Amino acid sequence: MNDLFSALNKNYDEMVSIRRHLHANPELSFQEVMTPKFIADYHRKLGLEVREGVGGRGVVAKLPGAKPGKTVALRADFDALAIQELNEVPYKSKVDGVMHACGHDGHTATLLVLAKVLKEMRSELAGNVVFIHQFAEEITPGGAKPMIEDGCLDGVDVIFGTHLWAPTPLGDVLVRNGSIMAAADMFEITIHGKGGHGAEPHNSVDAIVIGSQFITQLQTLVSRRVDPLKSAVVSVGHFEAINPFNVIAESVVIKGTVRTFEESVRTLLEQEIELLVKTICEGAHATCDYHFSRGYPPVVNHKKETQFIADIACSVPEVTNVKECAPFMIGEDFAYYLEKVPGTFFITGAKNPEWESAYPHHHARFDFDERAMLVAAKTMGMATLKYLKHK
Amino acid sequence: MNDLFSALNKNYDEMVSIRRHLHANPELSFQEVMTPKFIADYHRKLGLEVREGVGGRGVVAKLPGAKPGKTVALRADFDALAIQELNEVPYKSKVDGVMHACGHDGHTATLLVLAKVLKEMRSELAGNVVFIHQFAEEITPGGAKPMIEDGCLDGVDVIFGTHLWAPTPLGDVLVRNGSIMAAADMFEITIHGKGGHGAEPHNSVDAIVIGSQFITQLQTLVSRRVDPLKSAVVSVGHFEAINPFNVIAESVVIKGTVRTFEESVRTLLEQEIELLVKTICEGAHATCDYHFSRGYPPVVNHKKETQFIADIACSVPEVTNVKECAPFMIGEDFAYYLEKVPGTFFITGAKNPEWESAYPHHHARFDFDERAMLVAAKTMGMATLKYLKHK
Amino acid sequence: MNDLFSALNKNYDEMVSIRRHLHANPELSFQEVMTPKFIADYHRKLGLEVREGVGGRGVVAKLPGAKPGKTVALRADFDALAIQELNEVPYKSKVDGVMHACGHDGHTATLLVLAKVLKEMRSELAGNVVFIHQFAEEITPGGAKPMIEDGCLDGVDVIFGTHLWAPTPLGDVLVRNGSIMAAADMFEITIHGKGGHGAEPHNSVDAIVIGSQFITQLQTLVSRRVDPLKSAVVSVGHFEAINPFNVIAESVVIKGTVRTFEESVRTLLEQEIELLVKTICEGAHATCDYHFSRGYPPVVNHKKETQFIADIACSVPEVTNVKECAPFMIGEDFAYYLEKVPGTFFITGAKNPEWESAYPHHHARFDFDERAMLVAAKTMGMATLKYLKHK
Amino acid sequence: MNDLFSALNKNYDEMVSIRRHLHANPELSFQEVMTPKFIADYHRKLGLEVREGVGGRGVVAKLPGAKPGKTVALRADFDALAIQELNEVPYKSKVDGVMHACGHDGHTATLLVLAKVLKEMRSELAGNVVFIHQFAEEITPGGAKPMIEDGCLDGVDVIFGTHLWAPTPLGDVLVRNGSIMAAADMFEITIHGKGGHGAEPHNSVDAIVIGSQFITQLQTLVSRRVDPLKSAVVSVGHFEAINPFNVIAESVVIKGTVRTFEESVRTLLEQEIELLVKTICEGAHATCDYHFSRGYPPVVNHKKETQFIADIACSVPEVTNVKECAPFMIGEDFAYYLEKVPGTFFITGAKNPEWESAYPHHHARFDFDERAMLVAAKTMGMATLKYLKHK
Repeated sequence: MNDLFSALNKNYDEMVSIRRHLHANPELSFQEVMTPKFIADYHRKLGLEVREGVGGRGVVAKLPGAKPGKTVALRADFDALAIQELNEVPYKSKVDGVMHACGHDGHTATLLVLAKVLKEMRSELAGNVVFIHQFAEEITPGGAKPMIEDGCLDGVDVIFGTHLWAPTPLGDVLVRNGSIMAAADMFEITIHGKGGHGAEPHNSVDAIVIGSQFITQLQTLVSRRVDPLKSAVVSVGHFEAINPFNVIAESVVIKGTVRTFEESVRTLLEQEIELLVKTICEGAHATCDYHFSRGYPPVVNHKKETQFIADIACSVPEVTNVKECAPFMIGEDFAYYLEKVPGTFFITGAKNPEWESAYPHHHARFDFDERAMLVAAKTMGMATLKYLKHK
Repeated sequence: MNDLFSALNKNYDEMVSIRRHLHANPELSFQEVMTPKFIADYHRKLGLEVREGVGGRGVVAKLPGAKPGKTVALRADFDALAIQELNEVPYKSKVDGVMHACGHDGHTATLLVLAKVLKEMRSELAGNVVFIHQFAEEITPGGAKPMIEDGCLDGVDVIFGTHLWAPTPLGDVLVRNGSIMAAADMFEITIHGKGGHGAEPHNSVDAIVIGSQFITQLQTLVSRRVDPLKSAVVSVGHFEAINPFNVIAESVVIKGTVRTFEESVRTLLEQEIELLVKTICEGAHATCDYHFSRGYPPVVNHKKETQFIADIACSVPEVTNVKECAPFMIGEDFAYYLEKVPGTFFITGAKNPEWESAYPHHHARFDFDERAMLVAAKTMGMATLKYLKHK
Repeated sequence: MNDLFSALNKNYDEMVSIRRHLHANPELSFQEVMTPKFIADYHRKLGLEVREGVGGRGVVAKLPGAKPGKTVALRADFDALAIQELNEVPYKSKVDGVMHACGHDGHTATLLVLAKVLKEMRSELAGNVVFIHQFAEEITPGGAKPMIEDGCLDGVDVIFGTHLWAPTPLGDVLVRNGSIMAAADMFEITIHGKGGHGAEPHNSVDAIVIGSQFITQLQTLVSRRVDPLKSAVVSVGHFEAINPFNVIAESVVIKGTVRTFEESVRTLLEQEIELLVKTICEGAHATCDYHFSRGYPPVVNHKKETQFIADIACSVPEVTNVKECAPFMIGEDFAYYLEKVPGTFFITGAKNPEWESAYPHHHARFDFDERAMLVAAKTMGMATLKYLKHK
Repeated sequence: MNDLFSALNKNYDEMVSIRRHLHANPELSFQEVMTPKFIADYHRKLGLEVREGVGGRGVVAKLPGAKPGKTVALRADFDALAIQELNEVPYKSKVDGVMHACGHDGHTATLLVLAKVLKEMRSELAGNVVFIHQFAEEITPGGAKPMIEDGCLDGVDVIFGTHLWAPTPLGDVLVRNGSIMAAADMFEITIHGKGGHGAEPHNSVDAIVIGSQFITQLQTLVSRRVDPLKSAVVSVGHFEAINPFNVIAESVVIKGTVRTFEESVRTLLEQEIELLVKTICEGAHATCDYHFSRGYPPVVNHKKETQFIADIACSVPEVTNVKECAPFMIGEDFAYYLEKVPGTFFITGAKNPEWESAYPHHHARFDFDERAMLVAAKTMGMATLKYLKHK
């Protein structure tokens, strides 16, 4: 099987080049057009069976092995984020305000080149490989659910996926049995005050002051209401009150996220946020609309498959550590695949050893060490070969 | 002089029609093009000496009387606001996001038609009338200053101006000796945190939380630091942190206004806002840019001219009350004219008696009773006639 | 009448000595025992008619003039405050936690010595002088009301009173027609949370956090809800949650004051404080008790008597300025006397010219220039002589 | 060994009676006088070797077995809390403001009666039993450290301790390998503002408003600065600003606790609290004193001894569940014993099955099911017998 590793090594330059092409041409979730076309074309050129528009904008390519057997699914997501890239790199995003700031470009490049190499090793495969290229991972309701409903898991026996992870050093692979990613919910609030002239606060109801009070008191939910032994995050990313400086704001729009690992904490926060904003508004003669939208459920890895990937990762030459990690406070719609079929989602370290620290995911200066793609490809490729071999 | 009143009555329909034309075609401060052209054309058609581009975009028209004498200046401003009109009226703004929400359309219509009528009564005038049509009253540094520098007050002996005022009932005229309008300053703050993923607050510096703390604590400046016997307002109209809901904000932009009547309070607030935002940022590992921009000084009416207008107003048939008012917490660059020549700025009530209450100025549903224009025209017209007669 | 001035000069040392005796032996409002006894004894020794226990703990002494005539009342209050004196002076308070930190010791000394001098000048008096020594000015419901109910104003034609005022320089006398002192109300709030172990916030309702939120938001009432052209103060002086450091507070007790000059603002604040604390508690699963207690009404000086005192003050050699002052944001139950009889309450400057600044009243280091007592005595004494002379 | 269980059953009434005697006569930490005397007398009556005043106020009693062998230490703490008991029970605290609100009365009664029973079974013991009665567990620096320094662990091979736990049902025994209790630190802050009259906020620096801002912003440390996957608590139990309602507070005293399981989080919070309070004070013209006092380190159980107790607990008839528990966010100076010798600290459920829920520890209505003492005595007694038997 060293054939796999050396074949991937040989194709590493193409992996990089594909990743950079995608990086320079990012597309927002649910607005992907060129990316799925690029993916479909690539697979078609390899000679795989390609289905486009799966569940909307997804692409599924199937590689039938030389002999019959089980079916392994490998998944990569391909959407980008509404962030203006601040990196000055040759492959910098050409699209204003849109950026691959989470590494999905790398996921896709990894999977495409892995498909190419596995295609060449087709004779060794007893069973099928399904390449699931998912759109819209960043924004709920996500692409996974409709792709599953549209049959992308039909006949699949096991699924593997990974996230290239910039904060983790290159060479580390992180695994975790059970919950590895959180429930990621969204809330949106509009506070309705009463607009007016900036010099006449007493004739107005200042929505900015009320919104600020809400944000300030919101901190008490995590600090006082959630059991300190349980994990929870409440973050507001969007606070919008765009008016002339001398006008009192009629309204503000606030959008945020809630991350939890337990249903009871999730429900508590959903209710407490509502109680808080409503009572603050009542105390200030304002009203509000509150909308809480449940996002992806937690990603819960399967025990056997997690151990399987951990063992495989140990055999990859570039991997120096395979570790059990703490759960991540982020959501992933890989959760839905694991509700249907066994599998595991693992983390591939992607911090360049020369960097003192990496910019976090979703940051305007985010980047990763591209060699991580090789690690991911070798781990998933070897897992596929092993899984389909000894069947 | 009843000729003046009846002539204005006859031309009231034109006044309304001009006002509605301007209302439907508003232009933002410092971006006025069609409005000054319209004004200049009107005066030219009347046969007045017209100077355009005064101080930038201002228009000054001069009506020489039949005999030599003093020179009276009358001023109207003509800019609109960046507000999306929500009124459904036939003369609703045709320009998206721009609205005459402060009545400057009415000021201009009043002055144009008054010019027409005074032109007809030219033989009664011993002296000159200067019609100052000012651009950009709403946004500092305003149009008054450059227009004065460009000579609009040259040779002027006295100046009168008024504001149509929707919260005050039609028929009321408000006067005040001394300070009638406040110093209106502007501040703009950018708080620089550290962006990141919404699920990883500990790796970020959440600019929205910091901004909210600032807004919340900002209230203490008026409640604790300013002498309660002195008046001050600090209002924030703009709070901008537009990000995806699940991103931690890298920065927020905050814009607000400070209103005061005394230099010591003004300086205190300028300094305290800075101290507050800088220490809050320091305590939260953020930094900030602070920019405080001094706006118009207070409008300080002259005693004799104020009494003069009060007496005149009593003689206008439509005026039912002439009252001394409390000072207004708003800024007006009429302040600059009064620093150069004697005069007074008065308030013309413009609330339709059938309305239970009027929307405040700068509100998206602002409107006024157009008959107030007639009151304003008669008061300023009669003041002009009297002033130029008994010289 | 220079007799009065020189007689007072001669007795200045006694005035100082009485003041220092009282200063060293302060008594809390409604707990005065030795002070009224001292006052009564003094007047008795002078030979005046003395009534003790007036309205509770008040003392009224009457000096009948040589001839019949009008009756002038002069008032001084004599209670002290629950403050631990931090001054190191020979006459430092001997009572732990009690201090004459508002100058009532000086008021009393002034009045006593003035009584002595007027007694000597009795032959010049056509009418009577009533010396009203009032207990409990500092704490509502105050001593003025029950003393009036107990007849202290019976037969009185006019009343004068003054406050020695440390922030105002010695030599200044401040007068004001109309409102000179504010309505001074009190509120008391108990927030009921749920106590518990400091390590288990989620099983508790943290009354300290809720109380702090309330204090923080309370600032918005003055900054946003009160017309900036009207004066209002909301101050909390007492926040009590005395627990071990590692316990979550079951409850907090908050006490504060509201100062206003208008009934509408007073009522607004009474209601808004209640709304605020109740909604904050509701939003945090707590409850509260709210008690708003209306204190003294505004002190409204009478026009004629104010002018009379202003003129008198000009004639006092030590007085360098007689000025109209801004109203004071403090309460005074002198208000009740002025609701019954004409009169005026004025301010006697008491800042030692050598001090850069004086500690404010109610401060643990408060003190005043004792020569102010002479100014007060001369002004009130001369007013009495003049008032009783030309009748 | 059923002899142990039946002997304890027989002595249960005495256990209850001792516990109630102690409950009625609680003594504060570091002020214990009668309690250690009572303990020492009891052991002396049994005939044990007793050492009093160990490390201050501790009592150590030694029971030498019939044969030589290892030495087992059993520990109970005996101090009470500064809480006014609100229970109406026959054994209600007779001491105003002091209460056994944490169950230390039960710990002591358990150990005393166990000593009595083991004394009777002395012939079965190969080795010694040391009964460590510790003073001052509730307040750092605690009694454990000085008792160890004074030799209480000399010659000890293993130590066991338990906490009766009201929130856990009777019949449950909770064990945990590794960290079972948190680092429990203390901070104390004095904010120095500038006192003054409640009506003159602008001449004062309002320490209550500043303290409230601090408490409000303090919530952001747990909500924003600590990794959400790590546990931390910051609670303020004491907020003291006792002034008349109409005075502006010169200063406030704030006391709180920090609970963490990791040194890095502990240090982060120590530093962030300081930064926060100092910058808030700076922004408000105040100053502050900050004192952070590190309390007990985490209680880290030893693996083998934890398993040993878990097995023993399974054999106690009254025990229905032996479970691994989550760590507790509370401190315990049992930590110091475990730094010196192997051992384990376990939790004995003490909620009466008829109660719907129990009041939390440190609550004024705290109580526990006294039968839990029997469970604790049987578990620790059997552990002792087994440990000393098979040596």
